[in-house]
Amino acid sequence: MQIEIITVGNEILSGRTVDTNFAFLARALEAASVQVGWHTAVGDQSERIAEALHAALGRADAVVMTGGLGPTPDDLTRKAVATALGRPLRLDEQVVESIRARARTLRRTLPASVETQALIPIGAQLWPNRLGTAPGILILEDQKPVMLLPGVPQEMEALAEEHLVPYLRKRSRRVVETFTLRTSGVFESALQEKIGALPQGWSGASLAYLPSFFGVDLRVTVAGDDAEPVERVTGRAYRELRERVGPVVYAEGTHTMDEVVGEILLERGLRLATAESCTGGLLAKRITDTPGASRYFERGYVTYSNASKVELLDVPAADIEKHGAVSAPVAEQMAAGAARRAGVEVGVSITGIAGPGGGTEAKPVGTVFVGLSASGSTAARKFHFAGTRYAIRERSVQYALDMVRRQLQALPLEPRLDG
Amino acid sequence: MQIEIITVGNEILSGRTVDTNFAFLARALEAASVQVGWHTAVGDQSERIAEALHAALGRADAVVMTGGLGPTPDDLTRKAVATALGRPLRLDEQVVESIRARARTLRRTLPASVETQALIPIGAQLWPNRLGTAPGILILEDQKPVMLLPGVPQEMEALAEEHLVPYLRKRSRRVVETFTLRTSGVFESALQEKIGALPQGWSGASLAYLPSFFGVDLRVTVAGDDAEPVERVTGRAYRELRERVGPVVYAEGTHTMDEVVGEILLERGLRLATAESCTGGLLAKRITDTPGASRYFERGYVTYSNASKVELLDVPAADIEKHGAVSAPVAEQMAAGAARRAGVEVGVSITGIAGPGGGTEAKPVGTVFVGLSASGSTAARKFHFAGTRYAIRERSVQYALDMVRRQLQALPLEPRLDG
Repeated sequence: MQIEIITVGNEILSGRTVDTNFAFLARALEAASVQVGWHTAVGDQSERIAEALHAALGRADAVVMTGGLGPTPDDLTRKAVATALGRPLRLDEQVVESIRARARTLRRTLPASVETQALIPIGAQLWPNRLGTAPGILILEDQKPVMLLPGVPQEMEALAEEHLVPYLRKRSRRVVETFTLRTSGVFESALQEKIGALPQGWSGASLAYLPSFFGVDLRVTVAGDDAEPVERVTGRAYRELRERVGPVVYAEGTHTMDEVVGEILLERGLRLATAESCTGGLLAKRITDTPGASRYFERGYVTYSNASKVELLDVPAADIEKHGAVSAPVAEQMAAGAARRAGVEVGVSITGIAGPGGGTEAKPVGTVFVGLSASGSTAARKFHFAGTRYAIRERSVQYALDMVRRQLQALPLEPRLDG
Repeated sequence: MQIEIITVGNEILSGRTVDTNFAFLARALEAASVQVGWHTAVGDQSERIAEALHAALGRADAVVMTGGLGPTPDDLTRKAVATALGRPLRLDEQVVESIRARARTLRRTLPASVETQALIPIGAQLWPNRLGTAPGILILEDQKPVMLLPGVPQEMEALAEEHLVPYLRKRSRRVVETFTLRTSGVFESALQEKIGALPQGWSGASLAYLPSFFGVDLRVTVAGDDAEPVERVTGRAYRELRERVGPVVYAEGTHTMDEVVGEILLERGLRLATAESCTGGLLAKRITDTPGASRYFERGYVTYSNASKVELLDVPAADIEKHGAVSAPVAEQMAAGAARRAGVEVGVSITGIAGPGGGTEAKPVGTVFVGLSASGSTAARKFHFAGTRYAIRERSVQYALDMVRRQLQALPLEPRLDG
């Protein structure tokens, strides 16, 4: 079953509100084996809403619309759909009563306009909205379900989980399995060369390369009519992909690098301290994004000035003088100093040139050293990152965390597809 | 001019990646007087891409497509557009050369597949990509611009700002003026009450309230056919709005709080140190987002453990025992300790409960203290922030920076609309 999702709302089309409803619905539907084939967004204009619905009915097996079900004059979805499908609106007394009951429960006087939400296209089925006044609406148009949900995220999410997804899961007979391998440290093109034509042998499967600052995610989706072959192909794809790219996989699914590092530290009973210069706190911030990080993260030093590197981390001023603050020896001493001063087992450091200024011919913008101190020994790696200050800082942190992971898992510090 | 934006990518259509590119483009285009009329998202399938392009050319005055310009086999936009418009791809030697030059600069071997990005539809004009290998592509199809941008956000954003927006601004003849006042510390509803019906007197103008973790931005857009009345209304709107909400405006346009704080520090020749617990480095990170922050940011302490608060910031252990680490006295001592240890004039601290765990009845999740130390005196403010761990951390940092700003500008530490 291929579905189209239509988002209605000027606030979405103007870019002021990011359309997180769509992403939520698409993920929820995938779990119900329903594939989203198209997504369209239009503003609060009856004609555009009707056009979008007609186009969707022409190509998709089912249509979900979100937004425009509120009580204000710019909420036009109900009316536009009623006109487009030739199903006049009638006042649904049960909905009126549930709106009034809700007002009583909340001890609130709702304006009369709220009752326009009880205007429902003839022949529609309703899904009660536990969290608001606009019910979900289901219309079968030539056997194709057209489903209207409110745009308020929490109401939309509850209606989707309680009604929309179960309803579509029942209707769809298609089976979809999916998994994601998250890689770090190698380029998309290198992965592609290594993986080669492999996916062509997996019938019903597709492989997507999803690059970001955090690395390249490999997502495999397998679809079919029966569970058995879908599971078989998924298993095979998983094994073959892991075989090819395993050495650079740091996580699966939506697991993040900072979560992975945290879990390893917890498991091993180790604690971590950070020392950073050009990333200015981003490394510590990433580690503490995970709730409960205090169990393994002791402290972080943001040693932006050279004086603070000397005072707080015991980096010899002579080394800064000789090698520069952006150098392997200083990175190693920062990591070692952080671990020693914090009294913890693992120290990790970042020093580099995030730009846009500050680059030289010998050390251009994007030159970054990551230092590591663990079990009494230290190491450093040098990187050249491309992109903006933002990109350079994000990448530096991801590589630093990956170095911690590699050290603790006794892998070579430098990611290699062959090893 | 009404434009359609088409996003290409399975990762978008599956909901795994939220389409922030679209929101960025819609906002950037609005600034160029270009209205987004439709947004469509399709997966990595040639047929769907071609269909979406045809539909868009049938209704919009211009089409922007993002995504699918990479070097891997699932990047199909170039080919699909070439086929749909009947413009065969040819290898552009200049693009090949720029890809090779890029590889040399980065001292990297790029695989041969990267050069597929030099395959360009015949008759297209190219926009050079400073941050990646896929250039932007402009095709005039029956006088309608079709513009292809890569999906990597930073590359897309740079190409949009440097080429797409200036190009479309030139083509559109409507006069649009816009300004934004950024407020912090008061709710949208309070601003609304204060501003009242004011905008109804500004002909041709619209006022948008844009709430985010950073506060509420007030954006005024004035459109018309002639420059003179548009400028007159803009000037009036600006004066009247500043008059009403001036006391809570921290910046204009896209100026950020950390930039504003940095400028004040620079101007006054002051330096700053930070000490943070629950924000785990985010405060220092925000300050160092601005290039050149080393001129006023000396160092940051991420004192996650209690021991580190005592050791690094001289917070008396007895005070942590007595008041708790999340308390006004500890916040003040953290700020004072950071300033004193760093030898700088201004210290700012954050200690709180970002959740989801760790809350108590007396100090629920979202309880945050910000401490300030400047010119030898200290102060603290208590906040109750709602929302997720992410939201609480972001809001804490914004309020902490605003407190530094207010202190240095001799404003009352607590924001009030009345002055």
